[in-house]
Amino acid sequence: MKKLLLLALVIPFAATAQTDEKADSAFIKSISDNIFISRSSYYNLYDLTKHVGGRLAGSPQMVKAEQWGYNAMKAAGADNVVLQECMVPHWVRGGKDLASVSYASNGQTVTVPVNVFAIGNSVGTGAKGVEAQVMRVNNFDELEKRKNEVKGKIVFYNVPFEDEFIQTFRAYGKNVVYRGIGASRAAKYGAVAVMVRSMTNAMDNNPHTGALRYLDSLPKIPAVAVGVRDVEKLDTLFDNGVNLKAQLFTWGQFLPDTTGHNVIGELKGSTYPDQIITVGGHLDSWDVNEGAHDDGTGCVQTIEILRAFKALGYQPKHTIRFVLFANEENGGRGGEKYAEEAKAKNEQHIFALESDAGGFTPRGFGFTVKPESWAKLNAWKHLFEPYGGSTFTDGGDGADIDPLRAQFKTPVAGLNPDNQRYFDVHHAVTDVFEAVSIREMKLGAINMAALLYLVDKYGL
Amino acid sequence: MKKLLLLALVIPFAATAQTDEKADSAFIKSISDNIFISRSSYYNLYDLTKHVGGRLAGSPQMVKAEQWGYNAMKAAGADNVVLQECMVPHWVRGGKDLASVSYASNGQTVTVPVNVFAIGNSVGTGAKGVEAQVMRVNNFDELEKRKNEVKGKIVFYNVPFEDEFIQTFRAYGKNVVYRGIGASRAAKYGAVAVMVRSMTNAMDNNPHTGALRYLDSLPKIPAVAVGVRDVEKLDTLFDNGVNLKAQLFTWGQFLPDTTGHNVIGELKGSTYPDQIITVGGHLDSWDVNEGAHDDGTGCVQTIEILRAFKALGYQPKHTIRFVLFANEENGGRGGEKYAEEAKAKNEQHIFALESDAGGFTPRGFGFTVKPESWAKLNAWKHLFEPYGGSTFTDGGDGADIDPLRAQFKTPVAGLNPDNQRYFDVHHAVTDVFEAVSIREMKLGAINMAALLYLVDKYGL
Repeated sequence: MKKLLLLALVIPFAATAQTDEKADSAFIKSISDNIFISRSSYYNLYDLTKHVGGRLAGSPQMVKAEQWGYNAMKAAGADNVVLQECMVPHWVRGGKDLASVSYASNGQTVTVPVNVFAIGNSVGTGAKGVEAQVMRVNNFDELEKRKNEVKGKIVFYNVPFEDEFIQTFRAYGKNVVYRGIGASRAAKYGAVAVMVRSMTNAMDNNPHTGALRYLDSLPKIPAVAVGVRDVEKLDTLFDNGVNLKAQLFTWGQFLPDTTGHNVIGELKGSTYPDQIITVGGHLDSWDVNEGAHDDGTGCVQTIEILRAFKALGYQPKHTIRFVLFANEENGGRGGEKYAEEAKAKNEQHIFALESDAGGFTPRGFGFTVKPESWAKLNAWKHLFEPYGGSTFTDGGDGADIDPLRAQFKTPVAGLNPDNQRYFDVHHAVTDVFEAVSIREMKLGAINMAALLYLVDKYGL
Repeated sequence: MKKLLLLALVIPFAATAQTDEKADSAFIKSISDNIFISRSSYYNLYDLTKHVGGRLAGSPQMVKAEQWGYNAMKAAGADNVVLQECMVPHWVRGGKDLASVSYASNGQTVTVPVNVFAIGNSVGTGAKGVEAQVMRVNNFDELEKRKNEVKGKIVFYNVPFEDEFIQTFRAYGKNVVYRGIGASRAAKYGAVAVMVRSMTNAMDNNPHTGALRYLDSLPKIPAVAVGVRDVEKLDTLFDNGVNLKAQLFTWGQFLPDTTGHNVIGELKGSTYPDQIITVGGHLDSWDVNEGAHDDGTGCVQTIEILRAFKALGYQPKHTIRFVLFANEENGGRGGEKYAEEAKAKNEQHIFALESDAGGFTPRGFGFTVKPESWAKLNAWKHLFEPYGGSTFTDGGDGADIDPLRAQFKTPVAGLNPDNQRYFDVHHAVTDVFEAVSIREMKLGAINMAALLYLVDKYGL
C-alpha cells in the first residue's frame, strides 16, 4: 500500500500545476465568506416565495416574479438587466381539484375522498365531472395486455416510486413517463380519465403535480396525480377485490399563449466581451406551492453569484449572463427563446450552467463537455472539496440551457445537490421557503461561483 | 495529463485487491435496499420523538425511552438485550424560563421580553429573580480587560456564531466555551448572572440550551442562552449607548443522582464472540425538544443496522453491540459506565462507531485509528462512494465511545453527516421529528452498516 499512498500524494501536485492554486483557492474562499455572511439570498428567497409565491407561466404571479427578478438583479449590481420577451403557454388549473372513490359495502355505498391535483396541461372534467369504474394497472405492459378492458374506465397507474434508488432522480426518471403520456396511452383504448400515483419518497398524502403532454392524434382526457397514502388505501381495496368507482372534478384549460420574459442580468467581460458564459435557473414554478426548491433556489443562487462577484470587485474576462428563464415547468419556451436569440445575434456561448435540482447541500456537478475538457475539470476538483461539491460526473445539463447545447454544442453543466429530500417536496404543496436550508442553498451558490470563476479564467 | 488519468485508473484496481470487491459491493447494496424499503426506522423515530419526547437524564421520559429502546432492540432481532445500570445526573429546569430587559426612554421605562432558556446544569434565580445592569462583552479578553466593571452585573456574552466556517462544528467549537464556563469566568469578578448568545446559524429567535460546568471554587450564578434575534435587538440598544437592565427568572436545580441505563442489544459473533464491535448513539436529549437529530437519529440508526443485519441473515464474525447510551447531554455517564464495565469484565473492544452529529445526509467518517489502518480504510473508500459517505478524515470519535478509546486504545470513528443544518436546530425547540429527512437518516445508517460489515470482515 505504500506505493498507493505515494501516488495519492503525487496527484495533487501534478494537478495543481494546471492552475494558480493559491490565488484560486483564496478567491473561492472570499466568495464563500461573502456569500455566507450576506443575508441577501435569504431575503431574496423569502420575497420570491412569500410575496410572489407560485408563478406558473401566464399567471399574474409570473409578471410579479419578473419584476422581482429585474429588481433583484439591479440591486445585485448587474451592468445591465434586460427582459427578453418570450411567448409562454398559459395553462390554468381553474378551480379546486376534487376526487373521491366509492364502493359497495354491506349493501351501502361508501364514498371516500382522495387527495389529488390535476396534472399540469390536462383538460378539466368541468362541472359535470367524470365518474367511472377504476382499473388499476401496474405499468404500461399491463395496460397493453388488458387493453380490451380499458374502454369507459378511469385507468389508475399504480407504479411505486422505487425507494431503493440511492439517487432519487433515477426513480423519478423511471416513473415520470406515466405522468407524461399515461393519459394518451390510456385514451388510445378508450379510457375516460387517468389517476397517477404521485412520484415521491415522502410518507405523506400530498399529491405531486407536474406536466403531461397529449399525443395529438388521441382524445384528451383528464388526468390527476394522487397522494401516496390514498394510493395505498385504494391498493388495499383492489387487493381485497373491491369494485371501485371514482369521481373526478378538475378544471384545467389552456388559454391563449401570452407574453413572458427571460430576465437577463449581465456582467460585461473585460477581455472577451463577446464570449458568453450563462448561469441560471427557471423563474416559473407550479401553481400549488411557493416554488422554493423548484426553482426559487436556482434563481436566488444565480442572483447571489452576481451580487458576490460585484461585491468582491471581480471583473470577468468573458461576459457572464445571469438568467432567470421564463418557462420550464409546462413547456421549454424560456430556454428555447434564449438559444434562438443567441443564434439570431450570432453570439458565442462558451459555457452554460444551471441549478434546477433543488437548493440542497451540493455534491458536485454533472458535465456535458468535450472529452478533452476532463483533464482540466479533474485538475480543478480539489478546489471544490472544502465546499462539498467535488463529485464531477459525466453527463449533466439543465432543461433551460439544453437548447444552447443543442444549438452551439456549448459545454454545459448542472449543479448536483444532494437529492435525498427532493422528491419529498417536488411539485407538492410542501415546496415552500421553510423547506430550504439557507446555508445549503448558499453552499450551492458558492460551488457554482467557483466553477464560473475557473471557467472564466482558464476556459473549458 | 495523460499520465494522471492512467494513475487514476490504476488506483482502484490496486485498492480493490485488498477486498472481495464484488461480494462486498453486493452485500452493501443489499443493506441499502433493505433499509430504504423498510419503514421501521420511520416508525422508530416517530415513536421516540412523539411518544417519548424530550428525555433528559433522570426524567420520567428517560425511563420511557429506555423501555422504548429495549422493545425496539427486541423487535429488531437482537440475540439479547440488557439494561446496564448507570447512575446519572438529575438536573431539572423546574419551570418556565423568563427574561426581559428594561431601559429608560423619554422619561419612561420600556420593558422588552427576551427569549431565553436556562443553560443546562445551571442554578435558578428562583421566584426572587435576578435584576441587574447588563454588561456586554464580545469575548473573554474583553471580560478580563474590564473585570473591574463586572461586580453586581449580568454579563452578556455577545459572541457571534461565525457563519464563514464551512464546517459549522468549527464555529460551535470556537464559541461553546462561553456557554460552558462563561458563568464561572464572570462569577470570578462578581457577576450575578450571565446571558449567552445562542450558538446557531439560524435566522430565528429560538434560544439554544446546552450544558455548563461550574468551577467549584467560584460562586454558581444563573445562566441563560438568548435567541439571536433578541441578541440583535440588545446589540442595537448597546450600540446606541442605552443603559440596559435585565430581569431573569429561572428555576434550574440538581436533584440527587438517579439510576439510568445503557440499553445494549447484541449480535453474537460466530468466530470471535469475545471480540466486540460497538455502535451507538445517546438516548438522552435536552428537555426543550424531541431530541430528533440529537440524538434520536443516532439511536434509530443503531437499531436499524441491527434490524437490517438480522433481516439479511448476516451473522457477524465478531460480537456487535448496539448501544443506546444513557447520558451524554449534561454528563458523560453512559459512555463512562460502558467502558468501566468493559474493563471490569476484561472485554476486548476492537472498534467503536458513534452517530451523534445529526441524521443528515452522510458525507463520511472521522477516524481515530492506528496510522497503519489508513491503507485499509483508503482501500474501502470507493465502496462508500455510491452512498455519499466516502470522505474519510483523520480525527473522529463520539463522546460516548471516547472512554473506550481512552481505556483500551480502541480504534473509533464518528459518522460525519453534512452539517449545514445542524446548528439551526441543535438544543433548540426545532429539533423535532419534522426536521429529519428519513432518507438522509437511512443513508447514514447504510454507510454505518457498510463500515461495520467491513471492519467485521477484515478487521481494522
